[in-house]
Parts: sequence; C-alpha cells; structure tokens
Amino acid sequence: MERRAFIRAGMSVGVLGLSGTRTLDARPPRPLRRQAASPIRLSSNENPLGLAPAARDAIIKGLDEANRYPRLRTNLHEALARKLGVTTRNIVLGAGSTEVLKVAVEEFAGPTGTVVLASPTFEDAEWYAGIGGVRIEKVPLRPDCSHDIPAMRDVAARIEGPVCVYVCNPNNPTGTVTPSAEIDEWIGMAPERVAFVVDEAYIDFVEDPAYHSALPWIARRPNVLVARSFSKVHGMAGVRLGYGLVHEDGVEALRRRLVRMDANHLALIGGLASLASDEFVTQSLAVNRRGREIAYACFRELGLESLPSQTNFVMHRINGDLPTHISRMREQGIQVGRPFPPMLDYNRVSIGLPEEMERFAEALRAFRRRGWV
Amino acid sequence: MERRAFIRAGMSVGVLGLSGTRTLDARPPRPLRRQAASPIRLSSNENPLGLAPAARDAIIKGLDEANRYPRLRTNLHEALARKLGVTTRNIVLGAGSTEVLKVAVEEFAGPTGTVVLASPTFEDAEWYAGIGGVRIEKVPLRPDCSHDIPAMRDVAARIEGPVCVYVCNPNNPTGTVTPSAEIDEWIGMAPERVAFVVDEAYIDFVEDPAYHSALPWIARRPNVLVARSFSKVHGMAGVRLGYGLVHEDGVEALRRRLVRMDANHLALIGGLASLASDEFVTQSLAVNRRGREIAYACFRELGLESLPSQTNFVMHRINGDLPTHISRMREQGIQVGRPFPPMLDYNRVSIGLPEEMERFAEALRAFRRRGWV
Repeated sequence: MERRAFIRAGMSVGVLGLSGTRTLDARPPRPLRRQAASPIRLSSNENPLGLAPAARDAIIKGLDEANRYPRLRTNLHEALARKLGVTTRNIVLGAGSTEVLKVAVEEFAGPTGTVVLASPTFEDAEWYAGIGGVRIEKVPLRPDCSHDIPAMRDVAARIEGPVCVYVCNPNNPTGTVTPSAEIDEWIGMAPERVAFVVDEAYIDFVEDPAYHSALPWIARRPNVLVARSFSKVHGMAGVRLGYGLVHEDGVEALRRRLVRMDANHLALIGGLASLASDEFVTQSLAVNRRGREIAYACFRELGLESLPSQTNFVMHRINGDLPTHISRMREQGIQVGRPFPPMLDYNRVSIGLPEEMERFAEALRAFRRRGWV
Repeated sequence: MERRAFIRAGMSVGVLGLSGTRTLDARPPRPLRRQAASPIRLSSNENPLGLAPAARDAIIKGLDEANRYPRLRTNLHEALARKLGVTTRNIVLGAGSTEVLKVAVEEFAGPTGTVVLASPTFEDAEWYAGIGGVRIEKVPLRPDCSHDIPAMRDVAARIEGPVCVYVCNPNNPTGTVTPSAEIDEWIGMAPERVAFVVDEAYIDFVEDPAYHSALPWIARRPNVLVARSFSKVHGMAGVRLGYGLVHEDGVEALRRRLVRMDANHLALIGGLASLASDEFVTQSLAVNRRGREIAYACFRELGLESLPSQTNFVMHRINGDLPTHISRMREQGIQVGRPFPPMLDYNRVSIGLPEEMERFAEALRAFRRRGWV
C-alpha cells in the first residue's frame, strides 16, 4: 500500500480524525520506499510519515541557497521564541538535540564534574561525558521505569564539585514518564552546583496528566536546560535540528561551544516551515496513537508484558535472547531496537505506520507459534 | 541575466571551455535570486553556481528518507577513499570542515597544549582553542603573505607540551599559498609532540606548481590531519559537509569527539553525487578563473594593490577605512568580506559570477571617481 494512499485511506475510515487534509492530498501519491531489500524501520523512534509537506517544499526552495552559508538561525530563534513564549536569548540551536546535550554536559559538568543519570536511558549524555573523562554515576530506574529521583538526589548530594543531572522525560528507551512534581521539587531545592539537563525529545507524545515540561525553570535558574528535537514529531531526524532552552545568563556559554555554522540551511528553512505545520503534528500524533494501539493489542493477545509508553516507541518482554530476537525480526524484514542494558529481556519497537505495525504484530504472532517469544 | 542563461552564454563564447553541458542544459532556466533587497554575496567564499545539478537531484530524492537518521556515512567514507586513494579508516566526516578543525584542535592541543597559527588566517581554529582555554601563539605572515614557517617552527620549538600547528594552505583570507616544500621539511623533522592540521579547503583552485597537498604525510605520521570541504568547489556551504584525512591510528580518537549523527542525510547524499560531478567542478573552476580576471583587471586599472590569489577570493587595498568601505559596498547592493585584523587596509572580495564581478568592478570605479579608494 502506498504511503499517501494509506494516509488517505486512514483519513477516510476516521483513523486520523482530521478534517483538513488539503496539503497532503494536493500531492501525487508517492510509493512507500520499503522493498524486500529495505526492511521496515521500527528501530530508531523516527516519524514514519516523513517530512511535513510544507517542510519538504521549503527545503526544495531552500536548495537555491544551499551554496550559501546558513543565515536563518536568527529567524528560527524568533519563531521558536514566539511559539514557546520565551525570548531569542533563551535558545541554543544545534545539529540535533544531541549537540545541545553535548555542550550542556561540557559546560555543566566540566572536566572535573560528574554526570548523574538513569539506567537505562538515552545514551548520548553518557557518551559525551566519556569524551571529556567526566565521572558518571548511574542510578537504576524504579520498578515502574520512572527515574528514581530520591536515589539520584542522594547520589548528587554525596558528590563534591559540579554535578550535571540528566533526566530524559519521557525516558528513552522505556517510554515511561517520571512525575514532573518530583523533578520540580528537586530542582527547587538543589544547590547551585547541581545543574539539570531535562531531555524532552518526546514531549509532544505525552498525554499523562502527571507530566509537564520543565521549561518554567529556565526563568528561575541559570543552570537548567530543556532539550527539544525536530527529529520526532516533526519527522526531521535526517536533517539534524534540535534546540535547548535555558536562562539568558547561561546561553552564551553554551552557544560558544557549538560547532560553528552547525545548523544547516535546509534544517533551518525546513524547521521554520515545520513549526508552522500544526496539522502535520496532529496527524503524526494520531498515526502514532493508532500504531501504538496495534502493538499493545498484540502484546495483550500474546500475554507479553509491555511498558506504558508516552512516546513513539514501546518496550516489551521477549522471553528470550535479545540479539536472537532482533536478528529473527530482521529476517522478517523488520528492524527493531538495539540492546539497552540492563533491560536485555525487553525489545524496544518504534511505532511505524499502522500497516507496518500490523506486519510487526504478525511476525510476533508467528514467533509465538514457534515458541520463540 | 538569468543564471542558467549566463552559463549557456558563457559556454557559447567559450568562457568555460567545456563540451559536455548536457546536465545543465537539460534543466529549465532558473532566475538569479538576487533582487534589490538581496545583495550580491561576495563575502563568504561561496560557489556562485549553486549546487551541482546531480547533488540537487540527489538531495530532492533524499527527502524521502529525511525522516530517518543519517545512514550514508559509510558510503561517503568509501567514495572518498576511492577518490583520494586512501582507506575508509583514514577519514573523519564532519558537519563542515569546521567540525573537523574543532575535534583536531581538541585532540591535538588538549587542555594543556598550545595552538600555533598565522596572523591573519581562518578564524575557526583559534575560536575552538579559545573554548578550551588552550594557549594560542600567532605568527605574522611573511611580506608575501605566505606562512612564516621558520618563525612558526621557532615558536613551536620554544613551547613545552603538546603543540597543534594550524596551517591554512592556501591561506584564508589572503588567498596566497605557502610553498609545500617548507611545510614538508618541518613535518618531516618535527618531534612527536607537534601535531599538524593542514586546512586545504581551497586546494581545488590552486594552480601554483610550488603547491601540493600534505596528504602523503597521513601515511607516515599519526598526528597530521588534512582538512577538506564541500563548501567551496562543490557549492555545498549551506548543507554542511567536510572531512579530515588522518592516519588510521589517529582516526578513532577524532571520530569519538564529533557530534553524534552530525553529517546530515541530505549532505551525505548530496556529497556522494557531487563527488561524481567532475564536470561541475571543472565549470566551477572556470567560472572562478573568469571572475578573478575581471577583479584583477579592475585592480590594475585603478592601481589598487592586490594579492595573488590561488582561491575563490582576492584581497586588495582599499586606501581607506574598511568598515566604511564595506558599508559603501553594501549600499551598492554588494556584500564584501569582513575585517581580518591586522590587515585592515585590505578588503577580501569573494569571486562571484562574471556579471556579479562586473558589478563589483563598476562600484569600485565609482568609488575611485569619488576619491574613496
């Protein structure tokens, strides 16, 4: 089934629940790029819809200026500031939010500090700490897979010197949220030597009422950074664009650590267009919700334990060896997530298009029939 | 005059001296994007032709995968290795060569080392050294604007601890080359604690027989890095792609310092196509040669001293105040180069299309009539 055809079919049976589909329907159908040789990608928490049509158009127009060094950084600062109710002096743009995590770890932990983070969580903060030889303290998630905030607080309190706390909320790879009230309480009473990086790459997918952004803290503390991404709900993972939100007293120290000219022209012009594409975001969320339902229905049917996801991926038990499971899925033309130690009895599946999730569910049922899961 | 029309006209009067123009002529003419509100950009050493047509096509196709994290890094490693006669283990890709300069300065100078560079030269190595608090030693260019290699050697010899020598050859902003034999001699006898970063962003434009690449050194020394860019002859400045060439014993230490996923998918797919576009490169060089001739003819006519350029920009005397000159050019709809202290009695003009260079020459003649230059 072709992607555009799927989208229209989805619309017509009310899956997406959207009325205005003009932008998408105005374009000729494009074939789904998956072929026998190219597996379904359910491995990297990408948006299966592709770019927002307006972002795609803007990037194609932007090719006329692609020989020129990027010049739209200020424009994106302004658009983000308007959208988020902050000022341009609160924003650090990067080549993906990963670059923002890098400069935050460097600035907040420094060569002599310590990074405190959960286990398992998104790997990049630990990776960047490793480059600089920064000490790392890992605190296991609680049984419900939220961050163990009291334990992390205790660890941070015991450490001398600067501490950079990394909280991924919702957490990757578990998809679970940590109650914002707990994070707020800690930030509110933490000493100045403790800085916070709150990674909100998946915030757009959250429906849990116990969750809210840590953004209000940037007005009150100079060393709280909130990281956001264009890779998820905006579908721009390949284009590399993300940003951090931070107190204006802390912004220059972070910006000067960036790779110069890092956010490329196509990312900037596409990001500007995507920011204005509310309809695409709504549609991405609806497609994700539908795909997640298909996955959960299959896990229930097979009695496979799964974690409650507030993101575009789900972690579920596999009752077996993870590398074997990943390779068997690959043989079925389906690419699923990598190992996240110590949770090696779980697989992380990213949410694709509903028909892709049906293929995933079929494969899982077939594995069950063979006694593999 | 429209850009494509110019190119065809150029062809027909033999300016470009190319026979196969199929790729360019197959596309409909595109208007030059410059309007009254948008000045001619002769300020950032960009390629006025835009992207190679094949790169443009590849990027548009690549938009279908722009929602996926970049996966063509290995492909570009392989294509570059084939083209340059090295192995994939000699290559460090970055978001522009500036990222390669960043990781090289960090790795080679470390927190306790010193960067030795010319004055004036391209600013980024000094900028990155500044982030880490690395010491910087600047050595003035010789009167002919080549690097003063004997003086740089003396400075490096006096320094204790690791030294990272940055040599930009040809040099930005002067456009001049430093004889390769002098650089070779130094590298050949330098102690191990002295590392070299040779920035060859403009190598494709060089015709001087006293010049050759420092590339052969990477097979013989683990701490010589040669930096190259897709921003110049490939016209991809806005897309952000560059690379470093280094001994395979040194490659991992540099790669691990990169921003993760830094080279974006559109850069990788465009870079692959542009690498195969020899015709576009030839054409870029021909257009640059023609534009440079127009500039030199004007300088001669006005008796304005200029430096012998082996690049896509020229430095020339202005007989006055540089900020005033830049702002007067701006009023004429022409953007020229920024200040490069201590050479504040020179302007750097980047080479645009021949008709843009005629506009530049006209403006300069008008300035002369008013006694401004």
